[in-house]
Amino acid sequence: MNARIPAVVAIDAGQTGMKVRVRTDASVGEALLPGVRTDQPVLPQIGLAARQIADEFDLDIRHLAAGVSGLTDGETTPAAVAALVRSAGAAHAVVAHDATTSYLGARGTAHGAVVAAGTGVVTLGVGPGGAARVDGWGYLMGDAGSGFWLGREALVAAMRDHDGRGTATALTDAVRGRWPDLEQAYIDLQADPARVSIVASFAAEVAQAGADGDAVALDILRRAGDLLAESALTALRRVDAEPAVCAIGGVFRSEALREEFTRALVNGRPDARIVEPARIGIDGVEALIDLPADHPLAPLTWSARA
Amino acid sequence: MNARIPAVVAIDAGQTGMKVRVRTDASVGEALLPGVRTDQPVLPQIGLAARQIADEFDLDIRHLAAGVSGLTDGETTPAAVAALVRSAGAAHAVVAHDATTSYLGARGTAHGAVVAAGTGVVTLGVGPGGAARVDGWGYLMGDAGSGFWLGREALVAAMRDHDGRGTATALTDAVRGRWPDLEQAYIDLQADPARVSIVASFAAEVAQAGADGDAVALDILRRAGDLLAESALTALRRVDAEPAVCAIGGVFRSEALREEFTRALVNGRPDARIVEPARIGIDGVEALIDLPADHPLAPLTWSARA
Repeated sequence: MNARIPAVVAIDAGQTGMKVRVRTDASVGEALLPGVRTDQPVLPQIGLAARQIADEFDLDIRHLAAGVSGLTDGETTPAAVAALVRSAGAAHAVVAHDATTSYLGARGTAHGAVVAAGTGVVTLGVGPGGAARVDGWGYLMGDAGSGFWLGREALVAAMRDHDGRGTATALTDAVRGRWPDLEQAYIDLQADPARVSIVASFAAEVAQAGADGDAVALDILRRAGDLLAESALTALRRVDAEPAVCAIGGVFRSEALREEFTRALVNGRPDARIVEPARIGIDGVEALIDLPADHPLAPLTWSARA
Repeated sequence: MNARIPAVVAIDAGQTGMKVRVRTDASVGEALLPGVRTDQPVLPQIGLAARQIADEFDLDIRHLAAGVSGLTDGETTPAAVAALVRSAGAAHAVVAHDATTSYLGARGTAHGAVVAAGTGVVTLGVGPGGAARVDGWGYLMGDAGSGFWLGREALVAAMRDHDGRGTATALTDAVRGRWPDLEQAYIDLQADPARVSIVASFAAEVAQAGADGDAVALDILRRAGDLLAESALTALRRVDAEPAVCAIGGVFRSEALREEFTRALVNGRPDARIVEPARIGIDGVEALIDLPADHPLAPLTWSARA
């Protein structure tokens, strides 16, 4: 006799980890699984993870909600989302890009803009004009002001210093801390499958050198702050949003970057204000289930029933 | 009875192709082989290619000379170069980075600076102060003003236009020519093993858009020209070289880039002059064999005898 426990399963699926929240009438639990591989279809990975959790805890998934990094158009077709429902064994599934669920976590259904900046960065604006995504185009074409962007600028500045092309900077010693022979560094880096996260790891060195007063690092942090503010202002303008801006992610821990971001934001839009995130990303994933059909973010979600 | 033909074998080994020249008393011939893989040791690849050529044409290799992309310090030890001599079955071998042989091809033993800019870029200065390499640190840490750099700026500009962050530019349509759905482009690009050469391929679009008067493309070309001139000026200064500068490689085909390069060079150093390359890279490889021991480039070569 089948007496599985009715549950809502929410999955916040990033590239470094997949956070799973299971909510039943009696309890709320969370688990962390390995991240999604965005060079392969991501929805089957979500379906597999949900099915494993359901089998392990004997769940009857009434609602599966997922915010997914690297979701492509080809994966949001009705057939693909129906396949997700089947593979997860769920009654209902709703999926969105993680930019959408980051927004819902930070701002709920309120209007404004959310800049989410970690290794990459994506900005979403929500207002009377709908929803607008700005940047989030990856380390080769975009992600202006992201952790990768900051780290790459640090590596470029270190090599410019080393060559005598650029200004002396503490970043050179920071880079030498990882690669004692700077001139061989690029060969090691290019061959490393983790090169994107290695580059992004130098964002912390830029923040530290900036806090210590290094002029080159401060210039990098200020340019990042300007770029992130430009993305937020563009998002607000495109959807005519209320200028409430939420800035989340590791790069905003740098005081210099955050100050410049605020200055550039208010410079572009004197009525803009920075607001704290209401909740976190996994809360935004759960919010997909009850998102009103007329909300500007609704067209950026895809759902199916068994 | 062994009556192999005495020969000099020169190999100009880049990442896109390996040009081989075989010179005997009676003839000169050339062949093109696949490029070296720089994520693996490169000297064994040179040794294998030389041995294959020698066996095929029944050669007795008196001198093997090679200019090699991606040559690392670990591969220029006496033991490693001796291993090359053995694997090639040569009496003598001399190797150098391809930056060194590009210099020798373009300038011979004369002093000055050579900027070699294709997908990547490396600048070498030769003067009374010795030899100085500037940049050539790959697509993640350097290669300022290279084909990759130009292509990346084009992709970034297209996405800025698309988002409404940046100025409208013809580059957006150029990028859409490859990826009709711009917002999916970065996913395809990041997953492609040929992503570096794909990015660099957009350098030609920047040159074309610049020639057609596109302001965004012209700004990119001018910044590249400035960066390349900065590298040349740095190289000249570091070795106190005669200011004769040779600019080789595809990026200099853009008139706008070349004009700005010249302007910035003369602005930094009024006595600087741009000179045409004397010969080509494979000639520079052959020149390794007769390079005087007291030439500034001699410390950047490594040799061994059987």
